[in-house]
Amino acid sequence: MRFECNRTKMEESINIVLKAIPVRTTMPVLECMVVKAVNGVITLTTNDMNLGIETSFDADVAEDGIVLVNAKMLSDVVRKFDSDEFHFAADDEYRITLTSGSSKFHLSGIDSDEFPMLPQMDKNHKITISQMTLRDMINQTIFSISKNENNKIITGELFEITGDKFMIASLDLHRVSQRIVRLKESYDNTKVVIPGKALTELSKILQGGVDDEMEIYFSENHALFEFDRTILITQLIEGNYYNVDQMMSNEYETKVTINRMEFYNSLDRSTLLNRESENQPIVLHINDQDLNLDMNTKMGSMNDKISITKEGKDLDISFSSKYLMDVLKVLDLEEVTMYLVNSRSPVFIKDDETYNYLILPISMQG
Amino acid sequence: MRFECNRTKMEESINIVLKAIPVRTTMPVLECMVVKAVNGVITLTTNDMNLGIETSFDADVAEDGIVLVNAKMLSDVVRKFDSDEFHFAADDEYRITLTSGSSKFHLSGIDSDEFPMLPQMDKNHKITISQMTLRDMINQTIFSISKNENNKIITGELFEITGDKFMIASLDLHRVSQRIVRLKESYDNTKVVIPGKALTELSKILQGGVDDEMEIYFSENHALFEFDRTILITQLIEGNYYNVDQMMSNEYETKVTINRMEFYNSLDRSTLLNRESENQPIVLHINDQDLNLDMNTKMGSMNDKISITKEGKDLDISFSSKYLMDVLKVLDLEEVTMYLVNSRSPVFIKDDETYNYLILPISMQG
Repeated sequence: MRFECNRTKMEESINIVLKAIPVRTTMPVLECMVVKAVNGVITLTTNDMNLGIETSFDADVAEDGIVLVNAKMLSDVVRKFDSDEFHFAADDEYRITLTSGSSKFHLSGIDSDEFPMLPQMDKNHKITISQMTLRDMINQTIFSISKNENNKIITGELFEITGDKFMIASLDLHRVSQRIVRLKESYDNTKVVIPGKALTELSKILQGGVDDEMEIYFSENHALFEFDRTILITQLIEGNYYNVDQMMSNEYETKVTINRMEFYNSLDRSTLLNRESENQPIVLHINDQDLNLDMNTKMGSMNDKISITKEGKDLDISFSSKYLMDVLKVLDLEEVTMYLVNSRSPVFIKDDETYNYLILPISMQG
Repeated sequence: MRFECNRTKMEESINIVLKAIPVRTTMPVLECMVVKAVNGVITLTTNDMNLGIETSFDADVAEDGIVLVNAKMLSDVVRKFDSDEFHFAADDEYRITLTSGSSKFHLSGIDSDEFPMLPQMDKNHKITISQMTLRDMINQTIFSISKNENNKIITGELFEITGDKFMIASLDLHRVSQRIVRLKESYDNTKVVIPGKALTELSKILQGGVDDEMEIYFSENHALFEFDRTILITQLIEGNYYNVDQMMSNEYETKVTINRMEFYNSLDRSTLLNRESENQPIVLHINDQDLNLDMNTKMGSMNDKISITKEGKDLDISFSSKYLMDVLKVLDLEEVTMYLVNSRSPVFIKDDETYNYLILPISMQG
């Protein structure tokens, strides 16, 4: 096989499929990518057995063929070449020659028959969504998935379609994150759980803007994301997800509107006092015009004051600074609104049509 | 004690003295910095017992005083404040209050009597040099100091003044680096060895341009670098340094002029083949118009070709790619010239008036 293409195009395409190369594996073949040249099209494929990625681009193919090559090595060589042109050749014994300008590398490839090809999926069941919208929805919920593999279902995110309503949610023991959008059309009702790892990698390679659409296909065991000339296919997590809507509530006794970055920066400062694996909560004193933030640890203490708009009762309540910060970090808003009931009930940071975050308080002594 | 100043000025000054805070220490007091306010001047001091740094700036001092405070904590709090103003107060029991905007921190300070103050040095013996020149000289030689603490003398750099000639040199088992400048005046002959760690930190805080001068003072056991309103004082390494000039040579059989970045990029690519702790050399084949670079490892092979201007004999010689790259990286030149004798003799990359690098070849089999 032999083809020539622009080096930068090769590098960008490699970077997409690299996301499904496992960091550690007992199967060396999974550290390889398939390079296929057929009819003027180059296709690169990787598969870590849970997640597979495939991307294609046009090139000047002199001789069709297919070969397996170590993905990291190919990536490094292509990135470090300093000419614009790139030439790839493999002979019948899978000896690979990479050429760019006056530099030439020889690597040993492998027969592609040894590679676990991506599963075939029927494409009956799908939705269409903007690439940018999906990327934002993932980034604004992924932080609260659980890392605890003993409760596998919550290491993924819920994707739930009800008519034209599309909801993504994640939760751990302390909080729930929910993002909702209205799709342009209605679809069959669907409820699946997608591994967090697949969504993290997907959000990194989704480059399209708000007007660039993509398809998501669902089957019994897999979800397939298709955009531009790339597909990402992932296994689903089996089992029933928690009823997220039931955890949410519209009742409140206290409603606080606050500048997002002032609040974030103050919480961020409070984390300086939590070194040496202390985990003291931050205490919020909600008064008529101010939020007072207090933290007290072995290292010292902090008292901050932030102007707020308040409706309802005064309230003292404690939280993990980190959990509040996680939400404030991802909301691209000037101000956020918090809804509270009492010092033992969760806070909701929400706008019913688009997002809803629940965080449990930390009970205060005395 | 109480003072007010611009928060950014405080942050910049802290960043200077932080360079002498040890990463690990069994003496917690060395993790502190001295904050002194006297007559409208704030002085910050740190000392890791080998290296001490002190910097001053003007501020609005309401009450003179001196206190010790954990350096990392003070640095983090000042950096994370988001207002421009900064207010520092300490009471008689060393309780410290830091205020900026509507945020307030309370930390516990320590009596400054517990701190090892910087040694006093007589300032008879000095040179004057441009800050930028000294920074460049350090950066262009420091990479070849030895990390081997068993041969302490070569973990530092030689500073040698002979009349108006100022030479800095470092060496390890495989190479020698030498930078020379002419000073504006002549000084007493001096030969001292300065610890690599002190020079690394000094080069990070030397911000001045070519016209900003600084003084270096030498005593029997210390060197003191003074610039702007900062001093850095370091112990010297005792012992006799090697005779560096004797290692250099002006004889050659082959002289090669080559584009620096082309050469660097090719060597950089060759390192991709040296994974899994292999340490294969790169073989240079010097012909009339080209340098051919060959590398051969378990991972694969590379053949590059670069146009050169050559005088003298053809030559095949092998080197560690890394040692050649270290020199090429720091020389800010379009082209470099190499002088060689045979495959068992060192290469010299040099310009007699300003720099001279020696690298030993790796002997080739056969």
